[in-house]
Amino acid sequence: MAPHKAPDASRRSDRSRRAIYDAALALVGENGYRRTTIEGIAARAGVGKQTIYRWWPSKAAVLMEAFLDLAARAAEQAVPEGAAVSQGGGEYGIPDTGDLAADLKLVLRATVDELNDPLMEAPTRALTAEGIVDAKLGAEFIEKLLDPQLALYVTRLRAAQEAGHLRADADPRIALELLIAPLTHRWLLRTLPLTHAYADTIVDYALGGLTPRP
Amino acid sequence: MAPHKAPDASRRSDRSRRAIYDAALALVGENGYRRTTIEGIAARAGVGKQTIYRWWPSKAAVLMEAFLDLAARAAEQAVPEGAAVSQGGGEYGIPDTGDLAADLKLVLRATVDELNDPLMEAPTRALTAEGIVDAKLGAEFIEKLLDPQLALYVTRLRAAQEAGHLRADADPRIALELLIAPLTHRWLLRTLPLTHAYADTIVDYALGGLTPRP
Repeated sequence: MAPHKAPDASRRSDRSRRAIYDAALALVGENGYRRTTIEGIAARAGVGKQTIYRWWPSKAAVLMEAFLDLAARAAEQAVPEGAAVSQGGGEYGIPDTGDLAADLKLVLRATVDELNDPLMEAPTRALTAEGIVDAKLGAEFIEKLLDPQLALYVTRLRAAQEAGHLRADADPRIALELLIAPLTHRWLLRTLPLTHAYADTIVDYALGGLTPRP
Repeated sequence: MAPHKAPDASRRSDRSRRAIYDAALALVGENGYRRTTIEGIAARAGVGKQTIYRWWPSKAAVLMEAFLDLAARAAEQAVPEGAAVSQGGGEYGIPDTGDLAADLKLVLRATVDELNDPLMEAPTRALTAEGIVDAKLGAEFIEKLLDPQLALYVTRLRAAQEAGHLRADADPRIALELLIAPLTHRWLLRTLPLTHAYADTIVDYALGGLTPRP
């Protein structure tokens, strides 16, 4: 019996963890960040409150992990097979085929799909909205969820710079904002539809520039 | 006495209106959109609840007007004298000196100042956060507050296009998003400092493009 004990406990843990993530995301999407409680998550997940307190120090910590997990699963689904390059630790890089525009379009189209995914929509909006008014939560959200994604753009843009495909005087950390901020803006503020065609246009405008080329 | 009656009433109205705007913005900044009530605004403004209900149909309507008023006052302060072109109805246009980059930098620097203004900060964040989770309020916010501003960019970019300073195949409504979305992104998510130098860089990158020019 003994050899089976650990795997069983581990499977039970995995099931509980998954149930807690799902409950946390569902509740924050339905009720907003502030009205979501550890008690509510535990009840919905069918686990004891102490199980959650044993694994996470706070509501924010549970939610951050639930989002990291959700983003990782969404990235696996959204990025076409072979396009994403695992960089270890479960993170996905931006492909480098040598064609910067094509690589960026691929990744930004996948981002469009993620943002339009109904499973992501409500909880991501709720967490982002709370981070906008709560600076401490916002900073944690940026550090744990956004910055690691932005770092992938910096890596890809730096490679493009070394290959002579990006202006030598451009700062990759700023350049990436021309690519991702328009998508975030449309999605958050719902100004106009967020589509693949829009993602493609943003890449073309940002790389080629808005003024006529001679 | 009769000739003075109307102006006195009008002055009283103006004072009440200003007090109501100030109270509404202060409360939404302190407590968020949902916990702000007509009753609370009336109490803070020192007016009767009925005064507010006589002038506005809803809490959202009071707040929209308070923001329109605040934005108009901030624009008057932030844009250097002579730079803003009144377009009637109290709206400010983007100057057209024939130098697109300089005109955009002027306006985006003024936007940076507005976004960093402590008076604007808390209420604007609270309203934006609520619009992100409440689609109906968000749509009203976009229609009444954001779209009129975006229209000014479309006008200026179209003029640039006619003057041959903007790519003939660029859609001004999309092009403007490369300029304003990065500023909104930094401000909302607090990723990195929002400065004049950043505004200038965004204009340079968006107009010139990220790929090397031959």
